[in-house]
Amino acid sequence: MKTSKPTILVVNDDGITAPGIKVLVDVMREIGHVVVVAPDSPQSGMGHAITIGKPLRLDKVDIYEGVEMYKCSGTPVDCVKLAVTKIFKGKKPDLCVSGINHGLNNSINVLYSGTMSAAVEGAIERIPSIGFSLDDYTWDADFSHCAKYIKQIALQVLQNGLQEGTLLNVNFPNGAHIKGIKICRQANAKWAEEFDERLDPYKRKYYWLSGVFQNNDLGEDTDVWALEHNYVSIVPVQFDLTAHHAIPVLNSWKFDV
Amino acid sequence: MKTSKPTILVVNDDGITAPGIKVLVDVMREIGHVVVVAPDSPQSGMGHAITIGKPLRLDKVDIYEGVEMYKCSGTPVDCVKLAVTKIFKGKKPDLCVSGINHGLNNSINVLYSGTMSAAVEGAIERIPSIGFSLDDYTWDADFSHCAKYIKQIALQVLQNGLQEGTLLNVNFPNGAHIKGIKICRQANAKWAEEFDERLDPYKRKYYWLSGVFQNNDLGEDTDVWALEHNYVSIVPVQFDLTAHHAIPVLNSWKFDV
Repeated sequence: MKTSKPTILVVNDDGITAPGIKVLVDVMREIGHVVVVAPDSPQSGMGHAITIGKPLRLDKVDIYEGVEMYKCSGTPVDCVKLAVTKIFKGKKPDLCVSGINHGLNNSINVLYSGTMSAAVEGAIERIPSIGFSLDDYTWDADFSHCAKYIKQIALQVLQNGLQEGTLLNVNFPNGAHIKGIKICRQANAKWAEEFDERLDPYKRKYYWLSGVFQNNDLGEDTDVWALEHNYVSIVPVQFDLTAHHAIPVLNSWKFDV
Repeated sequence: MKTSKPTILVVNDDGITAPGIKVLVDVMREIGHVVVVAPDSPQSGMGHAITIGKPLRLDKVDIYEGVEMYKCSGTPVDCVKLAVTKIFKGKKPDLCVSGINHGLNNSINVLYSGTMSAAVEGAIERIPSIGFSLDDYTWDADFSHCAKYIKQIALQVLQNGLQEGTLLNVNFPNGAHIKGIKICRQANAKWAEEFDERLDPYKRKYYWLSGVFQNNDLGEDTDVWALEHNYVSIVPVQFDLTAHHAIPVLNSWKFDV
């Protein structure tokens, strides 16, 4: 059995000064040796974007006393790649945690979320990885009810490991009245897009993305259901996107070439 | 049976002036009524990023004679969202095709690729969607051998439809000696990251992402195998990322909260 303290990489997408990452750092310090690598500016909605066409900066910063911290000019996924390559240098951390995101990343949001994409990148690097998000978009969100669950989930992952090619997507309801933890599947929901249409000071049109989250999935085994009923939702996520069930169907097609 | 010509949305991530999208537009014009909505600048590696923190521009342009075209200041996924909401206005196109990407999007690259993420967004919008990519990163890549396959695959999708929640990831080997089409699964491969470490004119360090694609998957049913053996690879892709097989394992964990 490993006796030394685990090494834990902490990332996020709201940026290194976000209150959510501080809560995550504080919980992780109770468990192991923490290294933070986070974007120097908000990167919400960046999904699995990586920076190819321009250089990246990675600078050590001294924000929380006693914690090794770096700010990165790139995306959340860039942060994980730089951490693994330039900070850990091949000696991978025992755990990668991302968040706590200011705002839910349940259901289809796993695709758009920089928080979850950072955790996915951790899993691709074969580091046990977890993304954490709270149902509160505000900067002064109250994360206090999340701490004990985060610690338990992290300890379970360190103890049991995760199946190869999988990671965890953990979402918290807002408010303190949590009934417990539910293991869920991703709800089949989507955003009904709307774009605010406005005129700039030069009378030229511009658009601003908004939208309404639409859940048409009536299952009681989904993350949307769990959160609506005040449970912490945990969805095991995979990054093999192959729709294996569709392969036989496509094999029956006749291509005339 | 529908007798009118299908309406086809064409998007990409290399930008509206990329040679690859012109080839795709030319093939689609043989099949249906084409509307192009593409980024006004290269957006490679943008994954499923969306633009939240700033406004978007969408401007009609006249590039290819007789084709309705719009350039967009956002990401490939933004292009699809704006197309559906502001151009098609609820009357969705019959097909969404993305590409042809300058560079492969096989295996794990489905996650990083703006080309594939645009197609995924099309599928989320319940539009039958296909991403096309060629194994040649250069701007003057030769796409001529791809055309007849693209037409056949698009016609098959229009005729047969796709299973709900799925889309197609089509990759072409470079060069004209194609042996045929293989339906594949995504190879279990990853990028071994490297970052070029350089000094700027002010002697400050910066990093530039590079890396080597590593395939450790020996299966002969993968897209990597098919492409290496000169086949066109088609992987059915899904956007439900739930690792369903991991749910029973997680349900056996004991959380002490």
